[in-house]
Amino acid sequence: MAVHLFEPECLLPIAGVRLCAVAAGIRYKGRDDLVLMELAPGSRCAAVFTRNAFCAAPVHVARDHLAQEAPRYLLINAGNANAGTGAPGMQAAQACCAAVAEAGDTQPERVLPFSTGVIGEPLPVERIVDVLPAAMEGLNAEGWKAAMRAIMTTDTVGKGISERVELSGGTVTLTGIAKGSGMVHPDMATMLAYVATDARVESDQLQAMLERCADQSFNAITVDGDTSTNDACVLAATGASGVAVESAEDRGLFEAALLRICRSLAQAIVRDGEGATKFVTVRVTHARDAREARTVGMTVAQSPLVKTALFASDPNWGRILAAVGRAGLPALDVDAVTIHLGDVRIVADGGRAPEYTEQAGQRVMDQADIMITIDLGGRGHGQAEVYTCDFSYDYVRINAEYRS
Amino acid sequence: MAVHLFEPECLLPIAGVRLCAVAAGIRYKGRDDLVLMELAPGSRCAAVFTRNAFCAAPVHVARDHLAQEAPRYLLINAGNANAGTGAPGMQAAQACCAAVAEAGDTQPERVLPFSTGVIGEPLPVERIVDVLPAAMEGLNAEGWKAAMRAIMTTDTVGKGISERVELSGGTVTLTGIAKGSGMVHPDMATMLAYVATDARVESDQLQAMLERCADQSFNAITVDGDTSTNDACVLAATGASGVAVESAEDRGLFEAALLRICRSLAQAIVRDGEGATKFVTVRVTHARDAREARTVGMTVAQSPLVKTALFASDPNWGRILAAVGRAGLPALDVDAVTIHLGDVRIVADGGRAPEYTEQAGQRVMDQADIMITIDLGGRGHGQAEVYTCDFSYDYVRINAEYRS
Repeated sequence: MAVHLFEPECLLPIAGVRLCAVAAGIRYKGRDDLVLMELAPGSRCAAVFTRNAFCAAPVHVARDHLAQEAPRYLLINAGNANAGTGAPGMQAAQACCAAVAEAGDTQPERVLPFSTGVIGEPLPVERIVDVLPAAMEGLNAEGWKAAMRAIMTTDTVGKGISERVELSGGTVTLTGIAKGSGMVHPDMATMLAYVATDARVESDQLQAMLERCADQSFNAITVDGDTSTNDACVLAATGASGVAVESAEDRGLFEAALLRICRSLAQAIVRDGEGATKFVTVRVTHARDAREARTVGMTVAQSPLVKTALFASDPNWGRILAAVGRAGLPALDVDAVTIHLGDVRIVADGGRAPEYTEQAGQRVMDQADIMITIDLGGRGHGQAEVYTCDFSYDYVRINAEYRS
Repeated sequence: MAVHLFEPECLLPIAGVRLCAVAAGIRYKGRDDLVLMELAPGSRCAAVFTRNAFCAAPVHVARDHLAQEAPRYLLINAGNANAGTGAPGMQAAQACCAAVAEAGDTQPERVLPFSTGVIGEPLPVERIVDVLPAAMEGLNAEGWKAAMRAIMTTDTVGKGISERVELSGGTVTLTGIAKGSGMVHPDMATMLAYVATDARVESDQLQAMLERCADQSFNAITVDGDTSTNDACVLAATGASGVAVESAEDRGLFEAALLRICRSLAQAIVRDGEGATKFVTVRVTHARDAREARTVGMTVAQSPLVKTALFASDPNWGRILAAVGRAGLPALDVDAVTIHLGDVRIVADGGRAPEYTEQAGQRVMDQADIMITIDLGGRGHGQAEVYTCDFSYDYVRINAEYRS
């Protein structure tokens, strides 16, 4: 099902990070569904959370704990979102943190909880607490791949990536894992990403870098329009390599690597999007600013008509044109808009490009990776890229059948 | 396919309006596809048009003509949208108006053109011009039902309604027809509605009434999120009954009838929505204002996850909750939100209502007409209703296959 997506051969360990995946039997049988991640003392953590007003109990608790203390442990479960669960849900999330803190000899405020799965059902705290000693015992530096698989829900392929970067003070390593495949049932709890590095980065720098990178990766993807906010993305810097990210040049190199990691994970989520048969990049140029470019890109990327045409491999340029037209841009000069499908110009001067042929459009549409480029003309220098997939029968099937 | 939707038994003639439907062979074979509508001298006309920046040539021409003169003729074709056709498309629309003007002995500025159908193909002006004499010859007061059918594209049921209203000066009649069934291929040209009355209404009153009614009807429906702008809705008042709409009471009675007509036509479009198996009303109350209520309603009504759950008859309340949560309302108190599915309370205090059972939710979901009520608590007195349908395999099939 997934479009040109393969599990990583290996994920590099990060000095200062140990992980363990275990089977708690929360919802799935015969697979790991709980991950404990330990960060060495002195680690810095940054995070971005969903902006959904109905965010899950663990999001409230994680936000709250992160504001108080530098985390030592992250606890992630799949199969139950602990969302829409009211006050008992908050107590359940706190109980999990307390149990980890006790087993790890630290304070509950130094534990961040994360949940993904079905909404509105009580979190089986006991099953989680029961396996915590085994998880604590099993912590190891090589646990990334097992963790990557344990956080999957409707994902069909595990998502992870590692990269080494040469900085002025030496080599640092980044490894990231993510889960997500559309909004799946529990809506607000479907994308989780964890990136760790052994670089030493100050907290405020770390948070700023994560926000900028998330904006151009996890916040630039859409599978079904319900994914505009991501549940949580955490970036941990252990500093265990002894290499600091300080100079402007090092910051630039490090952030570029972080963006590649985030983009790769975000694109993997789209490539594994529910029912996806195509991976589509929508690139918008010459907008007034980046925000306007993003608006146009997202309008095209979310259009069910564009997405069903992509599924049908139909070079139906009128639907792209119409989506651009309804994106709400003030004083848009439609005659200045140019649209390319791959390398084929399909729209010029507000209508079909004179040299365009259906055959040329069809050749691009038959591919699994498709680039749509929208040039808005002389409005400015804003540009953006967003990533989406097509809209297939299987999307409806998966989402009509998911809960039962 | 359509959800509880039947063609009207009869449509009442409107004094001062004559119509004729003919077969021009624009795209369809063996059916009428061109409508000529004549308005008696002295008629007033109001209209609202699509806000899509890439609007079709006939929209430009109709807007322009309407600003100059009171229309005598409306010319509507199905099968070709004359959109994305650049300068030749403008010339084609103007040529049609000129031909009608010549046949009807009036100026081209008194003719409004409308097109719906495939985008990006040249309008076959000659085929239209060829049948104009027959259309002019065939004009008659009883032509509403034939006109209703001639403007259909992917519609499966003709949409029309009539109503008589008692005003202080006597009885007036309103008749309306519409077409629309999702965004279909030509995106920006998929909904057309024509309402006529023999009442006498001043132009500015007529326009104000139409805008208010369209806002609560045609602008409150969504089939696939691509329908937020309607191509055109025209309201003609011939005054031929001799009954004027002047007093505040008469204006209230008349506008209420107009709103019923518009709502009925708008709901018919949703009931005939592509692939629809359910008709859904989303009612939002206690918002800060009507705009905020509309935003919440539209967010729920457009959510692919809510719509696939409706298709599956799955009382998946978490998806509704999540859609409300991501509607972007400032300082939303989630604990004050209550959600009903039909008469069953599903959400209270930010989570599942304590008395809720899956069985009770299932009973409502099994119906074809479903009401979702979202009470935002104590934010204010804003309220809104929006109308939508579910999201089925057939939506994907229809839109993946439409063009070929």
